[in-house]
Amino acid sequence: MKMRLILLFLVCFSPISFAKIPPRLSPSSLDDQLSSKGKLSYETNYFTQILDHFNYNNPQTFQQRYLLNDKYWGGSKKNAPIFVYTGNEGNIEWFTQNTGFMFEIAPHFNALLVFIEHRFYGKSIPYGGDKTIAYSNKTTLGYLSSTQALADYATLIIDLKNNLTAIDSPVVVFGGSYGGMLAAWFRLKYPHVTIGALASSAPILNFGNITSPYSFNNIITQDFKGESENCYKVIKGSWKQIEDMAKTKGGLEKLRKSFRMCKNYISQGALENWLYTAFVYTAMTDYPTPSNFLNPLPAYPVKQMCKAIDDPKSGMDTFEKIYGAANIYYNYTGNATCFDLNNHSDPHGLAGWTWQACTEMVMPTDGNNKESIFPPSKWDYNERAQFCKSNFGVEPRPNWVTTEFGGYNIERVLKRFGSNIIFFNGLRDSWSGAGVLKDISKSIVAIVAKEGAHHVDLRWSSKEDPMWLKQVREREVNIISNWLSQYYQSLNEIY
Amino acid sequence: MKMRLILLFLVCFSPISFAKIPPRLSPSSLDDQLSSKGKLSYETNYFTQILDHFNYNNPQTFQQRYLLNDKYWGGSKKNAPIFVYTGNEGNIEWFTQNTGFMFEIAPHFNALLVFIEHRFYGKSIPYGGDKTIAYSNKTTLGYLSSTQALADYATLIIDLKNNLTAIDSPVVVFGGSYGGMLAAWFRLKYPHVTIGALASSAPILNFGNITSPYSFNNIITQDFKGESENCYKVIKGSWKQIEDMAKTKGGLEKLRKSFRMCKNYISQGALENWLYTAFVYTAMTDYPTPSNFLNPLPAYPVKQMCKAIDDPKSGMDTFEKIYGAANIYYNYTGNATCFDLNNHSDPHGLAGWTWQACTEMVMPTDGNNKESIFPPSKWDYNERAQFCKSNFGVEPRPNWVTTEFGGYNIERVLKRFGSNIIFFNGLRDSWSGAGVLKDISKSIVAIVAKEGAHHVDLRWSSKEDPMWLKQVREREVNIISNWLSQYYQSLNEIY
Repeated sequence: MKMRLILLFLVCFSPISFAKIPPRLSPSSLDDQLSSKGKLSYETNYFTQILDHFNYNNPQTFQQRYLLNDKYWGGSKKNAPIFVYTGNEGNIEWFTQNTGFMFEIAPHFNALLVFIEHRFYGKSIPYGGDKTIAYSNKTTLGYLSSTQALADYATLIIDLKNNLTAIDSPVVVFGGSYGGMLAAWFRLKYPHVTIGALASSAPILNFGNITSPYSFNNIITQDFKGESENCYKVIKGSWKQIEDMAKTKGGLEKLRKSFRMCKNYISQGALENWLYTAFVYTAMTDYPTPSNFLNPLPAYPVKQMCKAIDDPKSGMDTFEKIYGAANIYYNYTGNATCFDLNNHSDPHGLAGWTWQACTEMVMPTDGNNKESIFPPSKWDYNERAQFCKSNFGVEPRPNWVTTEFGGYNIERVLKRFGSNIIFFNGLRDSWSGAGVLKDISKSIVAIVAKEGAHHVDLRWSSKEDPMWLKQVREREVNIISNWLSQYYQSLNEIY
Repeated sequence: MKMRLILLFLVCFSPISFAKIPPRLSPSSLDDQLSSKGKLSYETNYFTQILDHFNYNNPQTFQQRYLLNDKYWGGSKKNAPIFVYTGNEGNIEWFTQNTGFMFEIAPHFNALLVFIEHRFYGKSIPYGGDKTIAYSNKTTLGYLSSTQALADYATLIIDLKNNLTAIDSPVVVFGGSYGGMLAAWFRLKYPHVTIGALASSAPILNFGNITSPYSFNNIITQDFKGESENCYKVIKGSWKQIEDMAKTKGGLEKLRKSFRMCKNYISQGALENWLYTAFVYTAMTDYPTPSNFLNPLPAYPVKQMCKAIDDPKSGMDTFEKIYGAANIYYNYTGNATCFDLNNHSDPHGLAGWTWQACTEMVMPTDGNNKESIFPPSKWDYNERAQFCKSNFGVEPRPNWVTTEFGGYNIERVLKRFGSNIIFFNGLRDSWSGAGVLKDISKSIVAIVAKEGAHHVDLRWSSKEDPMWLKQVREREVNIISNWLSQYYQSLNEIY
């Protein structure tokens, strides 16, 4: 097996300074065993969607994909609920496969399941589905934004309900990561379309200067440090050694061999990125059971990485230790013969995120303080702006998200406004520092799992799931039940 | 004085079928006596605003005008409040002059007053302020929409607060008519920018099929019928007589003379429009004190119109009676020598509403049932669509407003969502049938004045104001006080 997707981030951002590469928000893992139980089933549909909801001079439309499962639905006559996943930055099938929670709770709620693909991802490509055109320049990419995506969801859901004559069926939205941000924002902006949102691992506070730009890497640092002080120190010390080695004659070749890179390509930056990616995503998806996010991973993969590093068998050679750790992420199946740093493939179709990160999704995550497991660095907006200008000819609008969706003083703002949002966060997740971690009101609540990783609650369940995870899901189910009860009660009230 | 603005509506919509002309939302009146007391004062500012908030491919900006009065402001150190008027479809100076309420309550609240002009109106014209370009076609007009306007308000307010280092100053928004719709929607969509909204005479339910298309004219009918049964009957019967007369040889010339039209132009449709406009706007602005909306009007102008019709001195001639009524609206000062049906002037710069009515602001108001004071007619969406296609080359999106802002089952939706909105409506106002007339929750409340007309509460006060009007304003002040108290309390809470 060759290493995959790594260079995606190089595609996204400047390969020069690896520490500045903003990590992509990412979905949780698919437990193959469980999804294969046959619960994962859906039909594929397309909806003719308006390309520009906010400008009437443009009559263009595109085909938006959505997946449907009506196996458990109680039907429109009973006003049975509709559970909608607000798709994020990739192929919707991938997110659907990774959101077992919705399939597992659907029978209990007699819920219709709908997974809507985000515009410009997967098969929901404007311009006749031609990705080459859609992604060609800022004029065509201009329609790729969260605000348009939310309007897509509103439009599609209303139309779907009309078609199903299910106008009074309550809609609950679900989402993880960027999809979780969209779910929360959707409840806030479209309360007439959804009665509540489960926003899992949604870093809605990672904008402007609400959250420290050091938060993201601090959490990763803590994940490894908490596992083993030695592990942390070895990783932290390795960057300088790589740098030093790269400077020596034949050093790059030595590094190539140490890390089992294929012969076609090696550079210090690409290698560092490759390692950075492994640590970031392993920490982010540090799940209590085996997973398969981009690559298959064992249960508690951070622990496994540190085991590899701390293992006396790996000797005194730092590179060998770090390789051993990276191998957990890149080669858990043991099939890889070498890793290809030049592989730009994008199997889940995530490339549009680069555009989003260059326009509205300016999330400062790149700070590394002295204690960081990564080399010290500051979040530098100008670097981002420069990249975006040269790459797309656009200047980001770093204040747009807080203008449109808020974030500053969120407790004060939402304490007496809005209702029915669950913010789930796992504290091992590097994004959790930008999540809502405290209850805001009686019905805008935070569920925090100390041992949890990136939207672990949305994964397929497993017999091996720890008690805390079962409890998180139980609480989520109870809260959603309450929303529905309250809704059905309100249906009977006369105004 | 020549008759003014009448043909604006012909400019807006098909002159063929007068009954189908959607009345423009309109501001309340300026009581010259009171505004001249010197309370009306402001400085003019311009803000560099983003033309397209929702598409990043467009770096264009425009100069947005806003008026400021800091005479009463308690300052940023005290976190003194900021009262913002969310401008509607015309010159902001006009709305400012007509919103005495804000000037009158500002001293009590130590409030900064800000009146923001709606894009594409007044001096806030994109394309370098060149109205000819901005209004030239659907590509340039495409940026004229309520969603863009709301984003303008958010952007401007946030920037203004930053510049004043008044980040913690609470913002309350005010608006009447379309401006009231914007105020309510702004609170719902931007709760992080405003703590509450006074939405006066905001027909936010005049979309889709939420409100009967007969409601608007039913209320006008009732306004006149309630004044005098004979008055109603004379007006109701007049349309057939005008039609019959127009068909006879020399009939148009007879009509021209009866209604004192100038010699340059007469047509049956234009005459009917002229009369329709007089009845519609007189009913809408049936204020208890003299006013000056588009033309000067006496107190209780509907009563005055009916007096003119019922006056035995006007004899048996229907045209003479109807002329007497129209004369109240068009010539209360008595200076007019003839009325010019061909006058297309637009002193308040309202023409952009035609575009808005052809895109998102599809408000069915044209139904007239058998009992209507106007000839029977049905609301016909296709007629609107045809007009819009031929005029702008666009097809309206009649479902957009309910998709974006809601409206269906508003009580159920907002009962447990949102807070701090006052919906004021006067039941003599033809738009009131599409307003929120019942409390939705403890803090989303309806204030209904049986004797009130179109946002009468926002007018300058007068010694002659009836008790109910004083009470309405007092209640509004109390509610706003409570919002502010609650806000200041929350500032001291620790999260």
